[in-house]
Amino acid sequence: MSLTALCPGTFDPVTNGHIDIIERAARLFDRVLVAVVENPAKSPLFTVEERVTMLKEAMAHLENCEVDSFSGLLVDYAGRREVSAIVKGIRAVSDFDYELQMAQMNHQLTGVETCFVPTSPKWSYLSSSLVKEVARYGGDVSAHVPAHVLERLRERLGEERG
Amino acid sequence: MSLTALCPGTFDPVTNGHIDIIERAARLFDRVLVAVVENPAKSPLFTVEERVTMLKEAMAHLENCEVDSFSGLLVDYAGRREVSAIVKGIRAVSDFDYELQMAQMNHQLTGVETCFVPTSPKWSYLSSSLVKEVARYGGDVSAHVPAHVLERLRERLGEERG
Amino acid sequence: MSLTALCPGTFDPVTNGHIDIIERAARLFDRVLVAVVENPAKSPLFTVEERVTMLKEAMAHLENCEVDSFSGLLVDYAGRREVSAIVKGIRAVSDFDYELQMAQMNHQLTGVETCFVPTSPKWSYLSSSLVKEVARYGGDVSAHVPAHVLERLRERLGEERG
Amino acid sequence: MSLTALCPGTFDPVTNGHIDIIERAARLFDRVLVAVVENPAKSPLFTVEERVTMLKEAMAHLENCEVDSFSGLLVDYAGRREVSAIVKGIRAVSDFDYELQMAQMNHQLTGVETCFVPTSPKWSYLSSSLVKEVARYGGDVSAHVPAHVLERLRERLGEERG
Amino acid sequence: MSLTALCPGTFDPVTNGHIDIIERAARLFDRVLVAVVENPAKSPLFTVEERVTMLKEAMAHLENCEVDSFSGLLVDYAGRREVSAIVKGIRAVSDFDYELQMAQMNHQLTGVETCFVPTSPKWSYLSSSLVKEVARYGGDVSAHVPAHVLERLRERLGEERG
Amino acid sequence: MSLTALCPGTFDPVTNGHIDIIERAARLFDRVLVAVVENPAKSPLFTVEERVTMLKEAMAHLENCEVDSFSGLLVDYAGRREVSAIVKGIRAVSDFDYELQMAQMNHQLTGVETCFVPTSPKWSYLSSSLVKEVARYGGDVSAHVPAHVLERLRERLGEERG
Repeated sequence: MSLTALCPGTFDPVTNGHIDIIERAARLFDRVLVAVVENPAKSPLFTVEERVTMLKEAMAHLENCEVDSFSGLLVDYAGRREVSAIVKGIRAVSDFDYELQMAQMNHQLTGVETCFVPTSPKWSYLSSSLVKEVARYGGDVSAHVPAHVLERLRERLGEERG
Repeated sequence: MSLTALCPGTFDPVTNGHIDIIERAARLFDRVLVAVVENPAKSPLFTVEERVTMLKEAMAHLENCEVDSFSGLLVDYAGRREVSAIVKGIRAVSDFDYELQMAQMNHQLTGVETCFVPTSPKWSYLSSSLVKEVARYGGDVSAHVPAHVLERLRERLGEERG
Repeated sequence: MSLTALCPGTFDPVTNGHIDIIERAARLFDRVLVAVVENPAKSPLFTVEERVTMLKEAMAHLENCEVDSFSGLLVDYAGRREVSAIVKGIRAVSDFDYELQMAQMNHQLTGVETCFVPTSPKWSYLSSSLVKEVARYGGDVSAHVPAHVLERLRERLGEERG
Repeated sequence: MSLTALCPGTFDPVTNGHIDIIERAARLFDRVLVAVVENPAKSPLFTVEERVTMLKEAMAHLENCEVDSFSGLLVDYAGRREVSAIVKGIRAVSDFDYELQMAQMNHQLTGVETCFVPTSPKWSYLSSSLVKEVARYGGDVSAHVPAHVLERLRERLGEERG
Repeated sequence: MSLTALCPGTFDPVTNGHIDIIERAARLFDRVLVAVVENPAKSPLFTVEERVTMLKEAMAHLENCEVDSFSGLLVDYAGRREVSAIVKGIRAVSDFDYELQMAQMNHQLTGVETCFVPTSPKWSYLSSSLVKEVARYGGDVSAHVPAHVLERLRERLGEERG
Repeated sequence: MSLTALCPGTFDPVTNGHIDIIERAARLFDRVLVAVVENPAKSPLFTVEERVTMLKEAMAHLENCEVDSFSGLLVDYAGRREVSAIVKGIRAVSDFDYELQMAQMNHQLTGVETCFVPTSPKWSYLSSSLVKEVARYGGDVSAHVPAHVLERLRERLGEERG
C-alpha cells in the first residue's frame, strides 16, 4: 500500500508555516501532493501558475512531494488523485472549528479522511494574509517566507504601488 | 517505507468512538499500534490486562492492528516501537488545546509527529468517563460500546454495588 | 400563558440542520414563528419569497409552526409579534461567541430572552453556505436539504452557469 | 400544553447567577423545576437539605417555581417529572463544550431536549466554587449571593475554621 | 522611566467599551496614546478626523491621555512614538485567538510588547459594528456610546438615509 | 507615579515560560513583584521556601524584580503591596476563559486591574505540571527549566523514587 497525503491550500504565497506542515506530511506518508486551489471568488495576489512555481521551488528538497493545482470540489480532486488523506495544518483553536466542519462534510461526501497536523509553535501566528499585510506596508517578512518568495512579493507589491 | 500509527489511550473501557478513530488510522497508515497507558495516578475501572483484552476483541476485524500496553513516557514507547506518528481523535475544540500542548511537548522531546483525526459527528459527545457515569446509574449505553464491553461493564458495576 | 419561540435566520436555503432546530423548538414551545431576515447588505441566492416558500414546504408537517419574513431590527419584530424567546441553533463553539454577544445586546435593548438549542451531532458541520458551495461545484447535497430544496438549488445554480 | 423547564445543579450554594437563570427560565416556560443533584462523589459544603432550603428562600418570589432534589441519572428524573426541557445557564465558551456533550448524550438516552440560556454579563464570572474560595479567605461576596445565603456561608465557614 | 501605553483601533465610532479600556490603561501606565488606524481597505462611517474629534471629547477627563492617528504598520508607529506596550481590550475568547496572532507577529517584527486588558463584563457584547447596525435600524444605543457620539451617529445615519 | 506589576503563581517549579512572562512584565512596568501562592489544598513538589529560592536565582538578572510569597486572597495581598496591576501570562485560549473569570471577580472585589501578556510561541505548550510529569518518567526537560531548577527537580524526584 502506497499512502499519499493531499495538502490543499491557497498558498498566496507559500510561507514557512506551510513548508513546515508539508515537510511533516512528507515524513508521515509515502508521498505528498501539494495542490493550489483555484478559487474564482477570491482576488489572489499571485496567479495559480506563480503560486505553483513558488511552491515547487520551496519544496524542491523533498523527493516525495509533487505540486499541482485544481478547480472544483476538493473531494472530487482527492478522488481522481487517489489520495489516502487530506492533511491540514492547525495553528490555533480558531482554525479548528471551521476545519472540523469541512472535514466532516468532505467525509460525508466521499468518505475521504482528513488529518490535522499541528504547526510548529514558532509559526503559530503566521498566515499568508498577515505576511502580505505586513509586506504591503514595508515591514520585514524575511523570517516568514523563503528568499525566492520574498523577492517576488517585493516585485508584485512594487508593481501594485507603481 | 512501512508507516505505523500509534493510538495511545486509557481505554477504560474502549468505546465506539475509539473504534471509529482506530479504524480511520488503519485506513490512513500501513499498521496501527493501539497502546493502553498504565497510569498509576488514576484509578481505572478495569485493569490494564482487561482493557487490552477488550480492545483486542473490538479490533479483531482489523488485520493491520496490534494491541499493546506500556508504562513510562509516551515518546519513549513511540521510539522503541519505531512508529511514524501518534494519532489522536479529536471530538471538540476543548480537546484540542490540551492535545496541541502535548503534541508540541512530545515533538520537542524526540521529534515524534502527532496527527489529529476528527471523530465522527455521531460520537462527538462520547467518552469513557461519560459511559461509565451513565452505566453506573443504570442508563443504557448499548449504543456506545460493543456488546462484549457492555457485558463486562455490567458485571464490574454489579460487583461495585456488591 | 401561550409561549411562542422565534427562529430567525437567512435560510438561503433551509437545510436539514435548520429543520432539526425548528422541530426541537416546536416541541419546547406552544408555537414557533420562523422568520426570514431581509438583509439588504447580503446577496442571497434566493429571494425572500422563495426562501419563505421553501420553509413553508419544509415545515408543513408541524401544526404549531408559522413562517414569516421581516426587515429591520430583530428585537422590534420580536416585540411586534409578542414572542417569548428567540431560539437559535448552536452547532459548535465558534457559533457561540458571536451568538452570545447578539443575545446580550438584544436583551439589553428590549429585555427579550434568547435560548440556544444544540444541533443534532449529525448536522453539526452543516450550513447553508457550505451546501451552496458544494452544490455549485456539482457535489451531492441530497443528504443535507429536503428534496424540494434540492430541486430549486439545482435549477438556480443551473441558471447561474447559464 | 403545559411546559416545564428543569434547572438541575449542585447549587452549593445558590448564587445570584443561578437566580438570574432560573428567573429567565420562569419567564420562558409555564413552570420551572429546580433540582439539586445528590452526587456522592463530591464533597459539598452544604447538605442537600440545606441547599434545597436556601434555594426555596431564594426563589420564593417566583410563583411558577418548585425546588426539589434527586439522585441517579438526570434523564430518568426528567422523565419521571415529565419536563419539556432541561435548561442550563451558559456563562462562557468554556462551559459550552462540556454542556453540549452532556446535552447530546442526554438526548440520545431518552430524547430529552436541553436549551441553553446565557447568563447576564454581570454574572459571567460567577460560580459557586469561586464564591466559596473567596469567602473562605474572608473576601466580601455580598454582591454575589442573597443575604440569607451569605449568612449561612459565614456560619459554615466559621465552623470549618473551628 | 515613563511608561506609555498605545491603544490602537478603528474607533468607528468610539463606544463605552473602548472608553472603559482606555481608562484602565490610563491607570496602568503613566501615559496613554490612543491612535486611530487609517485603513484604506475599510469603508468607515466616520472620517479619521471625525473619529479623532469624538475620541478627544470622550477622553477629555483623562489628563494623561493623547489622541492621534496613523497609517502604515502599527509597529512602526509604536516605534516612532516610543511606546512601552500596545494595550488591547479583550471581550471574549473569540477576540483572543486573532489578537494573540497579531501580538506575536508584532513582537517578532520589532520586539514590541502587547498586553491584553479584559473589558468590563457589562460591555462584553459591545462593538462599534454592532452599535452601527442597531442604530441604522433605529434601535436605541444611548446606553452604549457617549451623548456626543450618539448625536453624530444620528446625524450621519440620517444623511445616509437622506 | 511608580508602577508595580504583581506576577502571582504556584511556580512548582518556575519554568522558562514563567521567566519569559516575568521579563516582559519587567519591561512593561517600573517594578515586578513575583509572589508564590501558598495553597494548602494542593500538594506541591517543592515547599514555598524552595520555590521562592528557585525564583530568586532565576530572576537574579532583573534589577527591578522582587520575589515574595503570600497566603490568603490575592486581592488582599495586591492591596497590601499597593500594586498597579496583576500580570498573567496567557499561553492558549483554554487559559483565557478561566483567567478572565478570575480577573473580573478580582476587579469586582477591590478594583484591581489584571493584564494578560502572551507567552512566547516557543513556550506555548509549557507548564510546571507537564515538566514534572515528563521529568518523573525520566524525560529530558533541560530545554524547559533553568539549570539550577533542573538539578533540584532531579534530586527531588530521585528522593520520591527512594
